[in-house]
Amino acid sequence: MHEIRKDVVRDNWVITATEFVLKPRDVPVKKLSAGEGGPEPGYNPHCPFCEGNEAVTTDEITAFREAGSPPNKPGWTVRTILNKFSALDMSGALDMQKEGIFEHGNGFGQHEVIIETPLHGQDFHRLPLNRIEAVFKMMRRRYNDLARDERIKYIQIYKNRGLFAGASLEHSHSQIVALPMVPANKNVLSQYYQEHDHCLICEMVKAETIKQERIVYEGDKFIIICPYASRFPYESWIIPRQHTSHFGDINDDEIREIALLTKMIITAVIDGLKDPAYNMVINTAPVNVPHQEGYHWHLEINPRLLVNAGVEIATGYFINPAAPESAAALLKDLFTGQKEPGAE
Amino acid sequence: MHEIRKDVVRDNWVITATEFVLKPRDVPVKKLSAGEGGPEPGYNPHCPFCEGNEAVTTDEITAFREAGSPPNKPGWTVRTILNKFSALDMSGALDMQKEGIFEHGNGFGQHEVIIETPLHGQDFHRLPLNRIEAVFKMMRRRYNDLARDERIKYIQIYKNRGLFAGASLEHSHSQIVALPMVPANKNVLSQYYQEHDHCLICEMVKAETIKQERIVYEGDKFIIICPYASRFPYESWIIPRQHTSHFGDINDDEIREIALLTKMIITAVIDGLKDPAYNMVINTAPVNVPHQEGYHWHLEINPRLLVNAGVEIATGYFINPAAPESAAALLKDLFTGQKEPGAE
Repeated sequence: MHEIRKDVVRDNWVITATEFVLKPRDVPVKKLSAGEGGPEPGYNPHCPFCEGNEAVTTDEITAFREAGSPPNKPGWTVRTILNKFSALDMSGALDMQKEGIFEHGNGFGQHEVIIETPLHGQDFHRLPLNRIEAVFKMMRRRYNDLARDERIKYIQIYKNRGLFAGASLEHSHSQIVALPMVPANKNVLSQYYQEHDHCLICEMVKAETIKQERIVYEGDKFIIICPYASRFPYESWIIPRQHTSHFGDINDDEIREIALLTKMIITAVIDGLKDPAYNMVINTAPVNVPHQEGYHWHLEINPRLLVNAGVEIATGYFINPAAPESAAALLKDLFTGQKEPGAE
Repeated sequence: MHEIRKDVVRDNWVITATEFVLKPRDVPVKKLSAGEGGPEPGYNPHCPFCEGNEAVTTDEITAFREAGSPPNKPGWTVRTILNKFSALDMSGALDMQKEGIFEHGNGFGQHEVIIETPLHGQDFHRLPLNRIEAVFKMMRRRYNDLARDERIKYIQIYKNRGLFAGASLEHSHSQIVALPMVPANKNVLSQYYQEHDHCLICEMVKAETIKQERIVYEGDKFIIICPYASRFPYESWIIPRQHTSHFGDINDDEIREIALLTKMIITAVIDGLKDPAYNMVINTAPVNVPHQEGYHWHLEINPRLLVNAGVEIATGYFINPAAPESAAALLKDLFTGQKEPGAE
């Protein structure tokens, strides 16, 4: 059976299975993911992101590095640079122009790459916990730094892992796009807050906690669910329990927990679904825009088991062959199994 | 240089190159397309869509077939069946239900497959013209038949060609999804009409004809453009010159021309861009909904040279590395060259 479910967070609809589940063995494109099980992590002379090849990248914006080691040299664990093929830059201004139906601004903004590890072939979820924490700390640093520029209105942090998730380089990295305007889908939560006088995501956490049908894990500071209107099979969200609008306000304790949960849920996805490509995206409140207190930031992990086809492109409706309830059950099993390897 | 361009038809924004063009030789994923140049078109015993294998498909809805040949037997040129893995069915009713933030209806609707040729490995654009016309006539027939059911509100016709466009079967086919609700992006044109008292697409055709920067071809009844806010590199639209809301109202003369133009533009895309995957989608007015006279139907061809990554998924903004103006120039060259093979 299938249902057409309201995606309240994006103000759209999703067509989802309620019983049939796209099982790992039925995943059609798994062989086209990035692939694990290659050679040991190490140095690749042809990779611009590898430690030792700093000279071929754009200039370093910031890095976590050994005390005293100079920028653009070895000695770092996490390193942020401009995206070499950036579609946006901070010189000039947006300068909107309109001529009849043709309206445009300049490509104002910034596009950065966070290199998550000096080693080639070292996957994000395989990093030690303190190194995953360092990646989140770098994301926080860059978010808050970019948010200080009042011309920036939205900061999108995301990760593409594997060919089918849009990754063009194998070396593990995330990206940040700082935009001069707010994407329409980022206004839904704040509008809901203004109309209903409470937060939709807080309500969702409460409702899911009561229902217990789509919960993967309940941590102290974060909860992991497979959302009711999941667009992607085995999509999961990590949501802070405490209502917080901006990802940039995450504190060190929260980073410690989200690093652990992210490592565990991605490991569950990679192991349970035969090493798929995935996107990780952080949805957060617009910056330098008033009345954003209703936003509640959250992190999405979207396995890319299927290709978005003509129907998604044309209608914006996603068809999801894996019931979120079944996906949550599978991920919960995998997650708990990993948490306590000796348990049944 | 890049611009942020308003996508007036979808009420969104696109970040597009204005100079740099993603050239065919730079296309990263071409090797993963469906691929041409296989064995001669013919019978594949393992393919459910091949003539002779009718018994393994769902029941035939309608077909163009030899006089006197019975349904679900050989003897057809175009054949429509229910999608075996349909997420929608016409039994029961939509029956919307709401419980707090959780709102859903049943998977009411219909999902059909149009098998475009009896032969395996015969690509759509390689079909003789009269056979492409037959495919469009089948689309028209199914559209108008489905539109007679007042519970159906939108009919999406689309084609996925190649793995990177979401095709799971190689045998050439299109699909139709009949939905019980109108996708939000299909309301933009009618809203524009009500606000401005004229059609946005008519205005676009006029403006593009004056500008002559993004026109690929001007036919008698249709015009082909690379739209100002193209989401996909080398995206093109075939637009009827005559303001018409519903694809289902296309007449035989128009089918004759659009079959020719579709064959030529897809051939240009396939030959010029090294055999990419693509989606073809028909945007048309909602059905059984009042005030749709402002819609102006049109056909999109979206080459899938890149994978939609985290930034598109999270923001809804597409980044297009091929300037539509350059894309139009390339496609125009290819198109005209094909039209008159002997010309310079």
